[in-house]
Amino acid sequence: MQQPPVAIVFDTFGSVVDWRSSLITELTEFGAKRGIRADWAALVDAWRGAYQPSMQRVRVGEVPWQTLDQLHRTSLDRLVAEFGIEGLTEADRAHINRGWHRLTPWPDSVAGLTRLKRRFIIGPLSNGNVSLLLNMAKHAGIPWDMIFGSDLFGHFKPDPETYLGVAKLLGLEPGQVMMAAAHNNDLVAARKCGLMTAFWPRPTEYGPHQVRDYAAEHDFDIVAKDIEDLATQLGV
Amino acid sequence: MQQPPVAIVFDTFGSVVDWRSSLITELTEFGAKRGIRADWAALVDAWRGAYQPSMQRVRVGEVPWQTLDQLHRTSLDRLVAEFGIEGLTEADRAHINRGWHRLTPWPDSVAGLTRLKRRFIIGPLSNGNVSLLLNMAKHAGIPWDMIFGSDLFGHFKPDPETYLGVAKLLGLEPGQVMMAAAHNNDLVAARKCGLMTAFWPRPTEYGPHQVRDYAAEHDFDIVAKDIEDLATQLGV
Repeated sequence: MQQPPVAIVFDTFGSVVDWRSSLITELTEFGAKRGIRADWAALVDAWRGAYQPSMQRVRVGEVPWQTLDQLHRTSLDRLVAEFGIEGLTEADRAHINRGWHRLTPWPDSVAGLTRLKRRFIIGPLSNGNVSLLLNMAKHAGIPWDMIFGSDLFGHFKPDPETYLGVAKLLGLEPGQVMMAAAHNNDLVAARKCGLMTAFWPRPTEYGPHQVRDYAAEHDFDIVAKDIEDLATQLGV
Repeated sequence: MQQPPVAIVFDTFGSVVDWRSSLITELTEFGAKRGIRADWAALVDAWRGAYQPSMQRVRVGEVPWQTLDQLHRTSLDRLVAEFGIEGLTEADRAHINRGWHRLTPWPDSVAGLTRLKRRFIIGPLSNGNVSLLLNMAKHAGIPWDMIFGSDLFGHFKPDPETYLGVAKLLGLEPGQVMMAAAHNNDLVAARKCGLMTAFWPRPTEYGPHQVRDYAAEHDFDIVAKDIEDLATQLGV
């Protein structure tokens, strides 16, 4: 790394927040309170399984642009039917879908981001929409300077419009922006656009179903243990 | 006001930050340090005088979309020539143009916004671009949740795309968003789009050249003394 970045943008689902545990906990409590029985863990895993295919239909133009909230809702409705879950009202489904707005950060995330914010511009660069990411930040106390939701660009990662769009909005060269994530493929795509890169692993992101991203598979600018360690390596 | 807003978005130049004093102070110090003589106060007033006409050329399609940074720079170059200011390098002009990224808040702004942030989503809704507003926030410690620069919409206020664009990005109805400003015309335009409105005066914004906005001229939802008083009236 020849020069430190001016801005650091973060993948969010899995990298900053623990979507799987958050959603399973919330849905299990919801089901118990409402007396609705279901394999909530399996539902959450299937819901996340629908994530990339649903965005891919947008990326290739099979369906028009829509926000991740909308894609999540379409997938949820399909899975509720497939799982045979009964008794969910429209308000219940809207509430469950907003569970993505209430995800819990990993233990190091807020502390590390708070340190990084002192010297760098920080923001999420996520496939989530602005309202999802903003509500999450308010809920969890994540101190972003700016929210880079995919709806600002009308594109999902890894489309280059996202990485390059951040640099343009910040008035920076791509090489002055660092993409930070627990996912190798996100960083490879960002590096192709000229961004700096930082990796840390989240080996329990997918629970027992994790199959990758245990370690950096490329020569990224920084490889850290977590976001606190990223702050340490960047000298803040 | 029947219900409090979910989000409050703020006009920035004049309403949150004191552009005139900030720029005159900075340019006077710059001129003294560099031995460049000019009527800096008159330059600042003329520069701000070029603000609305330069945006109007974009609004009516006379010139293509460009950021406020770009419009400011075009106006600056013209005025430097008109004022006969000599000895400015390209780096000097870029530095002076970035003075808009280093404006100082009015004394009540950061304290009032910090209080409002506890209960509401807060952000600037400004004709400034994202990088200008973000750098200003970092410089001055303004605790925005999200930055609504005009470059997100490709439109300047009072075009409805700006007010309605904020509501859309937040996943809210226009009536759940409050526009807050020291300018009557901004609030009238926001109200036409269905937003709630809050006014406070900044009677020294234009120094000796102030001719309007000494008081609310319409029946806005809240009329406050300043941003601290807005927080008080909203119960935070």
